[in-house]
Amino acid sequence: MKAFTTVIQVRFGHVDPAGIAYFPRIYDYIHEVYEEVWEQHVGVRYDKLLMGERIGFPLVHSEVDFKAPLRFGDRPVVRVTCFKLGTSSLGLRYVFKVDEVVCVDAHMTTVCTNLKEMKSFPLPKQYRERFEAILETP
Amino acid sequence: MKAFTTVIQVRFGHVDPAGIAYFPRIYDYIHEVYEEVWEQHVGVRYDKLLMGERIGFPLVHSEVDFKAPLRFGDRPVVRVTCFKLGTSSLGLRYVFKVDEVVCVDAHMTTVCTNLKEMKSFPLPKQYRERFEAILETP
Amino acid sequence: MKAFTTVIQVRFGHVDPAGIAYFPRIYDYIHEVYEEVWEQHVGVRYDKLLMGERIGFPLVHSEVDFKAPLRFGDRPVVRVTCFKLGTSSLGLRYVFKVDEVVCVDAHMTTVCTNLKEMKSFPLPKQYRERFEAILETP
Amino acid sequence: MKAFTTVIQVRFGHVDPAGIAYFPRIYDYIHEVYEEVWEQHVGVRYDKLLMGERIGFPLVHSEVDFKAPLRFGDRPVVRVTCFKLGTSSLGLRYVFKVDEVVCVDAHMTTVCTNLKEMKSFPLPKQYRERFEAILETP
Repeated sequence: MKAFTTVIQVRFGHVDPAGIAYFPRIYDYIHEVYEEVWEQHVGVRYDKLLMGERIGFPLVHSEVDFKAPLRFGDRPVVRVTCFKLGTSSLGLRYVFKVDEVVCVDAHMTTVCTNLKEMKSFPLPKQYRERFEAILETP
Repeated sequence: MKAFTTVIQVRFGHVDPAGIAYFPRIYDYIHEVYEEVWEQHVGVRYDKLLMGERIGFPLVHSEVDFKAPLRFGDRPVVRVTCFKLGTSSLGLRYVFKVDEVVCVDAHMTTVCTNLKEMKSFPLPKQYRERFEAILETP
Repeated sequence: MKAFTTVIQVRFGHVDPAGIAYFPRIYDYIHEVYEEVWEQHVGVRYDKLLMGERIGFPLVHSEVDFKAPLRFGDRPVVRVTCFKLGTSSLGLRYVFKVDEVVCVDAHMTTVCTNLKEMKSFPLPKQYRERFEAILETP
Repeated sequence: MKAFTTVIQVRFGHVDPAGIAYFPRIYDYIHEVYEEVWEQHVGVRYDKLLMGERIGFPLVHSEVDFKAPLRFGDRPVVRVTCFKLGTSSLGLRYVFKVDEVVCVDAHMTTVCTNLKEMKSFPLPKQYRERFEAILETP
């Protein structure tokens, strides 16, 4: 299965007194990886998408398993696949691994939205094709 | 049904260019409300629980519905109930409402953990009773 | 000397592996206290000031002494005074104390700005009077 | 004058309703750049320095000029030089530029500290040499 892959850093400011990433920080990582998906995989800078094309993707549902802690200094590999691709609905899955151990497995469902009218909107074809390229096979 | 209720503020630094709370920030709210549950409802300061008793509650699963945006200046009422109370497992539900509209509905499952040995641990009786007091009825 | 005084909490998500507030977090505290100054001392909610009156106060200069660490569980008292009150310029000082020990002493200089035109703007009289009330005496 | 140079991104979650970086976020950037200085310029990963060698650099003083806003999508170049190099004292300057416009000019003074004893400590020679290499000339 194809996927978009990137690496993130668990930095000093992200960890709690136990040296483990404070969990809300993990959702920040997910958003940063999501911005990289747009820029590096889809081919449009996320700021251009929002401010130029006025297309956004508000989150409607998240489901996350925390399987092992992320620690200060870890550099997890994050693998992104598409688990849902409706007319407007876009579901991306983010699996964080440190040394082949899955630490986080997140399913995030967003809706393609016209930011001028704040209405859902069919995902444009040129973007849809890029998410098809990382679509999970049933 | 009984619940713990508190109010939070959607502050300037929490919102994005659309004036809507950046979603990772909502998990921060959940953690802050969770700290209030311990202090105001259970009766122990969260820092004393962790640093003194060396008991912690790592998150193992989260499932969140984002139903309506939280906006700059909103002061949502957050209602906390217990949807799961196992030997070590503790599931808390957080419903955020602004003017009777549900904005966020979050189910967060944690495990009572001995922080010295980093092993799961039965939830002490005096704490269990406080979560029974806000247990959702089937 | 008169001052505005409030109490903040050093929460779990604010501290680093050494149990000490991660320094960028301290600037967040300063902004939160600043929002309280507007609401509780001046008498206008900060979101109404920005979104309704379209007046903002961009920061132009900060100078901060970090004298003692803020630790997880600390509830510092923050005392706010005005050290500079020009036509548009507003300088506020924030002193954080834990048990009479000064931990942070911050001087933050902002400029009253018309957010529609993004131009500096004389501080309106009704607000100026409230900052005069906490002006440091030479 | 020699300097360490890197590029950062002003991301979606960093900006406020005016599309401008929320100022406390700028101190986060400074810490992230500081971690890059250690890893890329000095040659030691910051997590190894803290957790392995047990050497840290608490901030004692910061002085920052905010000259122009950082906006969503900006990718400022940050140039780091050393403005102070005492026995234990280390002062680093961070200048953020977007298209040759200086946006932020920050002076951050830290003290080399033995984290086991929480006492100041002479900056080890192999590290001192790397900061001499980016020392500002009078």
